[in-house]
Amino acid sequence: MLLPLISLVIAEAALETVPNEIMRHPSVKKHAQKSGKKPTEILLDRSYHHAAMIQGRLKSEWKRGRPDIIHFALMEALSTPLFFTGMLKVYVSTINNKVIFIGENLRIPKSYFRFEGLMMNLFKDKVIKKEQCNDNSNTNVLLKIYDNVTFESLIKNIVKPDKLIGLSTLGVQHTVEEIVSKNIAKNNNSHCAFVIGGFPKGHFSDNISELFTYLCSIGKSGLEAHVVIARILYECEKALSLSY
Amino acid sequence: MLLPLISLVIAEAALETVPNEIMRHPSVKKHAQKSGKKPTEILLDRSYHHAAMIQGRLKSEWKRGRPDIIHFALMEALSTPLFFTGMLKVYVSTINNKVIFIGENLRIPKSYFRFEGLMMNLFKDKVIKKEQCNDNSNTNVLLKIYDNVTFESLIKNIVKPDKLIGLSTLGVQHTVEEIVSKNIAKNNNSHCAFVIGGFPKGHFSDNISELFTYLCSIGKSGLEAHVVIARILYECEKALSLSY
Repeated sequence: MLLPLISLVIAEAALETVPNEIMRHPSVKKHAQKSGKKPTEILLDRSYHHAAMIQGRLKSEWKRGRPDIIHFALMEALSTPLFFTGMLKVYVSTINNKVIFIGENLRIPKSYFRFEGLMMNLFKDKVIKKEQCNDNSNTNVLLKIYDNVTFESLIKNIVKPDKLIGLSTLGVQHTVEEIVSKNIAKNNNSHCAFVIGGFPKGHFSDNISELFTYLCSIGKSGLEAHVVIARILYECEKALSLSY
Repeated sequence: MLLPLISLVIAEAALETVPNEIMRHPSVKKHAQKSGKKPTEILLDRSYHHAAMIQGRLKSEWKRGRPDIIHFALMEALSTPLFFTGMLKVYVSTINNKVIFIGENLRIPKSYFRFEGLMMNLFKDKVIKKEQCNDNSNTNVLLKIYDNVTFESLIKNIVKPDKLIGLSTLGVQHTVEEIVSKNIAKNNNSHCAFVIGGFPKGHFSDNISELFTYLCSIGKSGLEAHVVIARILYECEKALSLSY
């Protein structure tokens, strides 16, 4: 039986380390000191760095500094049978044009403390391998980050889907079932990529929206990224009669 | 139109403050000091207190100290249109026979740092109200915790459902759609309560299992509590044609 490949891209993800512009702000320095890290090694987090982000006039600050959103979104996607069975590929495209590749065997930690540590190591070392694995075979790489890869380049050169479906309240209203049944089916090995925003407020930037084959909405009132992910992936499993 | 009431109970939840038995362990004292709290005011968390839990021979330690699981489970339930529209009631029944009532208007913080702060305040003050609200009307209470309420007492005296459905890999295999369609329907105002385990490993204790009307499984391999919650509540919304 032919099986489709499904990709999930978390776009404009509010995940980054503290940028140089605000690394000297007292709230950032205090937080870094507590963690025993350099200010530019810790994750930008509005819960701790709100004042620094506002006072430092960080560009697009309202869309940044929410690693918790990415933690929930990844946890949701990586906890599905669709991911366990290797039918789902997951990418994080950050607001700063970094791309994170998620290895097939990754179990994301549910503890935020551990997730934060993992991400700080990834930003610093660029790769996270299975413990005690020093070879570079793909199965041993859990996470890898690349700099200077735009969303457009990720889609056109790496993901290369047949259809790219954006999810946003600005899209055409459909049920999740409708969206999935139109695009995912057994015996159809086309590759469909779903794109979910990884930011707290607002909409996709124009340079992202213009790449979508369709822009769809699954609710008049906005739903959290992790809820949209849970529903889309569950309907994909149903469409494929995935037994787990 | 008659609408059913749906309840979700997170049972044997691995959420508690550090118990007296291990409050003097160095890892607990160090962690409490860092937070500027007393050891018995911080949440028991395996990520920080693993050594204390093992060396202190904490009873049922393998089922305890996972506030992250409860954070994900609550976030999942409280982010659904079913909850927003007031059709879902959510309860947390902890491993120590405490019960947490979730107010209608609660938006649980996605940041673990804020969630942790909220829970520590709840365990200390027993109630969390909307800011600047000092009256005791129910709409102003966001969270309330009661001591010494067993799961049985919660179900029999407070939730009082017509059917109590436990979700566990030990249950009879069904699709989520089958479980929901058999128990939830428009124009049927019966009250169905779903019970999900809020612990990392193992199964429901016997005194909990024996209260279930049915014990159902939605996957041969275990799924995370938050995934089960997402799927059950989404199918409930579909069964009720909830428009959102």
